[in-house]
Amino acid sequence: MARVYNFSAGPSMLPESVLKKAQSELLEYGSSGQSVMEMSHRSSVYDAIIRDVESSLRRVLAIPENYKVGFFQGGASTQFAMVPLNLMTTGKADYIVTGNFSKKAAEEAAKFGEARIVASSKDRNFTYIPDVKAIDYSKDASYLHICENNTIFGTRYAELPQVEGVPLVADMSSCILSRPTDVSKYGLLYFGVQKNVAPAGMAVAVVREDLLGRAAESVPTMLNYKTIIDADSMYNTPPCWCIYMMGLVLHYIEDEVGGLAQMEKRNNEKAALLYDYLDSQEFFTNPVEKKYRSVMNVTFTSPSPELDKKFCAQAEQAGLVNLKGHRLVGGMRASIYNAMPRAGVEKLVEFMREFERENG
Amino acid sequence: MARVYNFSAGPSMLPESVLKKAQSELLEYGSSGQSVMEMSHRSSVYDAIIRDVESSLRRVLAIPENYKVGFFQGGASTQFAMVPLNLMTTGKADYIVTGNFSKKAAEEAAKFGEARIVASSKDRNFTYIPDVKAIDYSKDASYLHICENNTIFGTRYAELPQVEGVPLVADMSSCILSRPTDVSKYGLLYFGVQKNVAPAGMAVAVVREDLLGRAAESVPTMLNYKTIIDADSMYNTPPCWCIYMMGLVLHYIEDEVGGLAQMEKRNNEKAALLYDYLDSQEFFTNPVEKKYRSVMNVTFTSPSPELDKKFCAQAEQAGLVNLKGHRLVGGMRASIYNAMPRAGVEKLVEFMREFERENG
Repeated sequence: MARVYNFSAGPSMLPESVLKKAQSELLEYGSSGQSVMEMSHRSSVYDAIIRDVESSLRRVLAIPENYKVGFFQGGASTQFAMVPLNLMTTGKADYIVTGNFSKKAAEEAAKFGEARIVASSKDRNFTYIPDVKAIDYSKDASYLHICENNTIFGTRYAELPQVEGVPLVADMSSCILSRPTDVSKYGLLYFGVQKNVAPAGMAVAVVREDLLGRAAESVPTMLNYKTIIDADSMYNTPPCWCIYMMGLVLHYIEDEVGGLAQMEKRNNEKAALLYDYLDSQEFFTNPVEKKYRSVMNVTFTSPSPELDKKFCAQAEQAGLVNLKGHRLVGGMRASIYNAMPRAGVEKLVEFMREFERENG
Repeated sequence: MARVYNFSAGPSMLPESVLKKAQSELLEYGSSGQSVMEMSHRSSVYDAIIRDVESSLRRVLAIPENYKVGFFQGGASTQFAMVPLNLMTTGKADYIVTGNFSKKAAEEAAKFGEARIVASSKDRNFTYIPDVKAIDYSKDASYLHICENNTIFGTRYAELPQVEGVPLVADMSSCILSRPTDVSKYGLLYFGVQKNVAPAGMAVAVVREDLLGRAAESVPTMLNYKTIIDADSMYNTPPCWCIYMMGLVLHYIEDEVGGLAQMEKRNNEKAALLYDYLDSQEFFTNPVEKKYRSVMNVTFTSPSPELDKKFCAQAEQAGLVNLKGHRLVGGMRASIYNAMPRAGVEKLVEFMREFERENG
């Protein structure tokens, strides 16, 4: 079979040019005589790689000087614990719950202090984002936590909450690098890399430097942001291959796409293909309030669970894979991250039209 | 440059056949149409991979039925915290300190309870292993922790401590899969994969099942062995590529080498080439008590730091790289893990003879 269009919510597609580059130098990186997978992380050749990845990320995301970058293991799920363990100095934090992962983040924080759920969109099965201007935030919260794009429910914040004196912490796993980001609006942002950045196995945190060094002595060394960041993510052996792959993706964004503004344009166009089609017919339904529709994850249902199942099976035969929706939502979900080509979305829309015609 | 002989202490060489296999299916695994790096971890194709890796590990290591296997992120350094957080139910544990990493493990455990150092070989710069029969162990220790092979100092246990009623916990990062292991002697063994098993980015723990479920509620979810193990290492997105690479290495051990008994034979022969040469001359010195010499990491010094430096520089020119010793020991260190071909060790010994002749 040829390569398929993979609509997985993550891990997900990587740009084919990135995979080809990785393949071409898999046995020997440059003139090092080694695979990146074999290199000592303390060697000068690997040091050049990790430094380039950090500086590329800083350039692409336009990270201000007073923010530090760290590469961590354990995915966003480990960040759910690291955020309160490092930042919850008042013993309290505010959480907005807009889906499964923001709920998990709040539950994890409740192990370490008071995690107050200040707003939730659970009442309508997370099909919208609460009005961030109408929320009664805590004045003494150590931070306010959000999940900026909700992979399972296909929503995203249209506007960021900003509470004076309270750092905003955001899980950006499923939207990072999809468009320009004003990092200065966040105290800390983090993301698992397996959706838009690299193969699974790493989370990256970007932390305003005044928020570092607040963890208690009893916090596990590896869960202390400062430990890892002070050691330039080399406190212990980092996930070297994952970091290298992230570098290839960042170079792809810079050199092939032309940066995040161009990336956003491409992504908006891809999402519009799908949403415009969805809005033009009545066979498939997208439940999300238009204002909050995710550009990365597009959910939709056909008239019945049986037809949903048939849709996914036939789509797979047509080379459109992993379209099954999350069990919490049902139906279908098309995750159209950075690396999904426009042609993949066009093919999906064409397939949907055909399916509608045959089954409508 | 052609591929070099890489004597790095970790990350380190991978078998060339493994790298070639990974390269050949990098853009498309089987007939899936996807790279392993792009696959949904919940897909049937990835599920088959991770199941095969676990069953291969169980087969190769002959893991008894009453032991569970988990794939974790954060390396052995995160295990240093997980062990006490999950097992230190009496508030006390015994640690034998035989080098840098066992010291770090004990220091980490001291965050969570009493980590008693019952023996140490620091008095002679960790050039031996304390007599495990002569140690005064604590009767009420929750476990006894050792580091079975000491990467930096080039030592290994010749005999395992066994204390009735006290589970033995071992960091086996630098010796796992180098020879047959009687897993039943351990309560828990763990290893970072980046030396003998796979590219960096994962640790594996093998845990006797009665030791699971002892963690306090306040332990971070991702640091609870039971969370990960109960979810078959799929509680969150695992490091999919790393797991896949581990599978290729396990198949190499089974199919190309013929299992761990054969692996041990190869490793003993490689180590003997080096140690026999070292014992046959007086230019280079190995400081380790013979009984405790590591088969994986061979340390040696020339008559002066200047000659050490010259040695490493000339060796690199000859395609023998990463021979510089750790700063705590100085001199040279040849890490000759499973994937180092015999030819690499032969070439090193030949180079040493030549260097001795020219500089002796």
